[in-house]
This record gives sequence, C-alpha cells and structure tokens, in this order.
Amino acid sequence: MSIRIGIYGYGNLGRGVEYAIKQNPDTELVAVFTRRDPSTVKVNSGAEVVSADKVGEWKDKIDVMIICGGSATDLPVQTPALAKQFNVIDSFDTHARIPEHFANVDAAAKETGHIAVISVGWDPGMFSLQRLLSNVILRDGADYTFWGRGVSQGHSDAIRRVKGVKDAKQYTVPVESAVEAARSGSRPELSTRQKHTRECWVVPEEGADLAQIEHDIKTMPNYFSDYDTTVNFITEEELKRDHSGLPHGGFVIRTGSTGENGKSNQVIEYNIKLDSNPEFTACILVAYARAAVRLAGEGAKGCKTVFDIAPAYLAPEDGDFLRAHML
Amino acid sequence: MSIRIGIYGYGNLGRGVEYAIKQNPDTELVAVFTRRDPSTVKVNSGAEVVSADKVGEWKDKIDVMIICGGSATDLPVQTPALAKQFNVIDSFDTHARIPEHFANVDAAAKETGHIAVISVGWDPGMFSLQRLLSNVILRDGADYTFWGRGVSQGHSDAIRRVKGVKDAKQYTVPVESAVEAARSGSRPELSTRQKHTRECWVVPEEGADLAQIEHDIKTMPNYFSDYDTTVNFITEEELKRDHSGLPHGGFVIRTGSTGENGKSNQVIEYNIKLDSNPEFTACILVAYARAAVRLAGEGAKGCKTVFDIAPAYLAPEDGDFLRAHML
Repeated sequence: MSIRIGIYGYGNLGRGVEYAIKQNPDTELVAVFTRRDPSTVKVNSGAEVVSADKVGEWKDKIDVMIICGGSATDLPVQTPALAKQFNVIDSFDTHARIPEHFANVDAAAKETGHIAVISVGWDPGMFSLQRLLSNVILRDGADYTFWGRGVSQGHSDAIRRVKGVKDAKQYTVPVESAVEAARSGSRPELSTRQKHTRECWVVPEEGADLAQIEHDIKTMPNYFSDYDTTVNFITEEELKRDHSGLPHGGFVIRTGSTGENGKSNQVIEYNIKLDSNPEFTACILVAYARAAVRLAGEGAKGCKTVFDIAPAYLAPEDGDFLRAHML
Repeated sequence: MSIRIGIYGYGNLGRGVEYAIKQNPDTELVAVFTRRDPSTVKVNSGAEVVSADKVGEWKDKIDVMIICGGSATDLPVQTPALAKQFNVIDSFDTHARIPEHFANVDAAAKETGHIAVISVGWDPGMFSLQRLLSNVILRDGADYTFWGRGVSQGHSDAIRRVKGVKDAKQYTVPVESAVEAARSGSRPELSTRQKHTRECWVVPEEGADLAQIEHDIKTMPNYFSDYDTTVNFITEEELKRDHSGLPHGGFVIRTGSTGENGKSNQVIEYNIKLDSNPEFTACILVAYARAAVRLAGEGAKGCKTVFDIAPAYLAPEDGDFLRAHML
C-alpha cells in the first residue's frame, strides 16, 4: 500500500512536493490543504484541494503531512498544531530558533503519539548531516558553509520593501577565493564579507531615485550592510526573462588533521548545484516523509531531525537491495 | 566512563585507529592484538600489545573491537569469529562479497547478542551513504563514483608480483573531463577506460627487461588491461622520496531531474582529498565504534552497516548540542 501524503500549503515548495511524489511510486498525494479559497487553487495532479480549516476531517486518510509554510510565522504555529493530528514533516529553517521549535513540536507529537521530523531540506537538512558526518570523522578541523550562487527569497523580499522598488531578485554569491582558501586546509578565518557577495537585480518604480535605492539597499542592516553588494537596475521584462528561476546551491567543507602530530591534511566537501531550490527541498521532504511513516509503524513518537534517522529508512528499497547495490 | 576499544591487527589502518582514538577523548585504547610476536610490535600509545591467540581473555575489558585486517582473507574469518565475543567494527571492502559477509557476521553476532558494523570506511562507507542519500533525493538521475588521485594498494601489490619488479606504487587517477561530464547533468555513459587512468611507478630489479615489465603490467587482466596505463621506471630512492605516502580521494556525483517534465537539473557532489587514506578510514571506524557501543547499550543486536545507523549516534555530543550547533 502506498504512503498517503498530504501537502499543507501550496506555494513553490508545495508544488515541488507534488512533483516529487510523482517520482516516488510508493507514495501518493491524497490532498492539498490551502488557506485560500480551494476553488481558486489549481494543482498539477489529481489531488483534492481542501480548505485548511477542514484538515481535521482527513486524520485517518493521511499517513504523513508535509507542511510547506514559511518559517517566520507559519511553521512555528502549524507544525505543533498539525503534529497533534498527523505525522508531520516541515522544513523549518530559522537556525537560531530550532531548539525552541523542536521542543514545541516534540511536546505536541508525544502528547498524541505522532512522529514529526522538522528542519528537513538542504540547510538545515543535508548540509547539517554533512557537517555532522565530517565533524565526527575529522575531530581536529574547521568547518565552512557557503551558499549560492542562488536566489535568496528573504533578501529579495527585503529589497522589495525599499521605497521606489517595484520588484527585485537577490543572488547570494560565494567568493571563489574564499572557497579555495577553505578547501586548502589552512583553516583561514573568513569574515562574513570575505565569504559571500550579494548581487541585486532591481526594477525601480517610474521616476524613482536610483541613487537613493542603491544607498538604502547597501546600508540595510543584517541583510546587506556586512556584505559587498552590487545593485543593478533592470526593466520588469528583463527581470522576468533573466531572473525568474529559483536556482541555488552551496558548499559544506571541513578540513582537518589526522595521524602522528596531525601531519595529514584531510578535506571533505559536499556541494550542490540546483536549477530549482524548492524542488530539491521537496524531494528531500518526500524521502523523510517515507522515513517518518516507517518510524511511526515501529511505534516511534515525538520530534526527530535528520540526525535521528538511519539512512536506510529514506529509501524505498530494502536492506538486502541497498547492501548489494549501494554499499 | 570512556569507550574501551581494542584494535585487532596493527598495520597502517591499526596505527591510524590508534591516532584517531587520541583525537576522541571519550574513547580509550586498551589493547592491540597482533598475530606477530607481541614483543616485536611497538605501538604509539600506552596500550598493551597482546597475542591474537589470547583475545578471548579480554572479553570483559573491551567494549568494541576494531578489526583492521585485510578484506581478501582476514576479515571473512576474523569478523564472524570475533563477533561471537565482542561488539565489532570492520572495513570489509570487497563490494561484491558484502551480502555474504553480512550474512555470516549477522548470524555470529545475533547468536551471542553482539553488535557488528561492517564495511565502514569511505568506500564502502561514506561514499555509500552519499550514494544512498543522493538516490533517495534524486529518483530520476545517474550516479558516478570516481576514485583518486590516490594509491591503490591492491594494484601496487599486483605490479610487485610482475617478474623483474622490485617495488612499485600505483596511482588511480580520475579523468578530469569525465568528472566534468558527470557533473554536467548530461548523464553520459562512461566506460571504465574513460573514467580513470592508472599511473605506475616501478623500481625494476637490476638487469630486468623494462619493455617486458611494461608489457606485463599493461596487459594484466582485471587490474590494468581495461585502462590507459602509464609505466614510469624510477630508482628505489626516488620511490621512497616521492611515493611513500598513501594519499587518496574521490568523488561521488549524482545528477538528476526534478519538477515539471523533469526540466530542472540538480547536481549533488561529495568529494574527499586525503593525505592519508588509512588515517581517514580509521577516523570513520572510531566514530562507528562509538555508535556500536551505544546501540549495544540500547539492546540492539546483529550486523549493521552505515545505512542502519542514525547519524546522531556517531557524535560524542548530545541531541540538544547537535541541534543547536550543527543543524
């Protein structure tokens, strides 16, 4: 019997999950839940579109709910609430608030005997797993994570809030020389400014003060002031033509010393290059949804992260197959 | 209380484990077991050196035995035998024989209630984990594993068996253009010859027929005949000066398609660059030794691989720490 999945929230990520389910024949999408009027939401599959209010009616029809809300305000509320009714997966990515989110979700899931897997995606998620794996191997070493080249939704949104800006896309770009320095094993200390640059493509409103926009972006605290930022003004057509995708990527590098007097330099690198950030995250969510259902079947309860799940649970194939073909 | 580790077999890998234990303060090396006369074995720590015959006397003094024998003839015998008396870890790396080795070790470990983790290292091991992780994410895709640039002990040994060869080292070298083609997402079919070249550094015996040696190496079935092989003759001094290390490395690449009509190309790459192959393998063994002892403490029994162990078990830190600092 296939794994019955619900999608809660139907934006870029929710659509990505819908496509990912099609690539996993042991899973099936049964319903998409939306806060919008369901009649206005067109999905790319035969799944029913249901108002989020009615999610409780689906308790016995869904094995695991993949929650595709935003980390700022949606997930802190949605994940604990839904974990009381379903096994759930989310991609909560506000790193600093993970311990708090974990505690809330764990309490809700344990109360009702569900499994919840939080912060599933690539960072947090696959990158976290790589950080852990490389740290347990190279105990004496240094870690580096670089993001990009890719579109940061948060930074693009921040630019759109600047006066005179009609639309914008922001790319986070790793500095190649910093990546090389990290790989070298010399364990450089790299500042925020040395690691990434920020590249902004901005459509100004008609008659806007371009110099002022550029100044407002470059001096924006938290988002841009600690970076070397470039601002490019383009037309709406150019933005649509050249910057409508959501590519991303990044690198997790750890270098370390082993052996007699630490004389051997060892380098571990994981990197990804994505045409579509949300589709990639979605694929990871579906693999962990499979794991969650299996864990639930074994009687496991409470909140888990990628650290707590044995890799074999992620694959549709059994142990014999995995050992024969992938080990 | 620290994890009490025994090392069974004291070659390059055993010495690497000894150094790795020093980098992991929650572990302690209690004894090194050797088939040689213990009085002739000098270790780099305060550990007792014990004859392999007497291993049974150490049953209650060791939490986990790291078996550092060879895969061809040692481990198929040693791991099942020792799994009857100890929790054990090995780095069995004959891929084709893993299912058989797993079955033998599983039966032995279950019979006596021990935990065994086999095929721990980087390939099999970390590379296997990366193959599994990238396959569960990118269901529609292609896998590529490249090894090197690094010393292959098996191929170096094969050259040493050629008539007229006094000593030799063989480097496996990935073909850069093949690595690039794999990364591109075009899913090329790559032949054995296209993926790697083999570079041989050979010290001939005095008066040996160099042309014959070169011919014998290049036409050797399984080892060299399917590859573009170069043979370089050098002196014993040059071999010692320039080729005494055991560097290695490699790449695991998976590319795949996601989204609507598979239009997004996604690339995942894991790569390592090692000054010392055995020291790196040793570090992985120690991390899995920690996991084995924890699993045993929870009552788990039988044979496991890297696929069966949740990553959190590998780290000395607890879940709260890992979530706060690595997720």
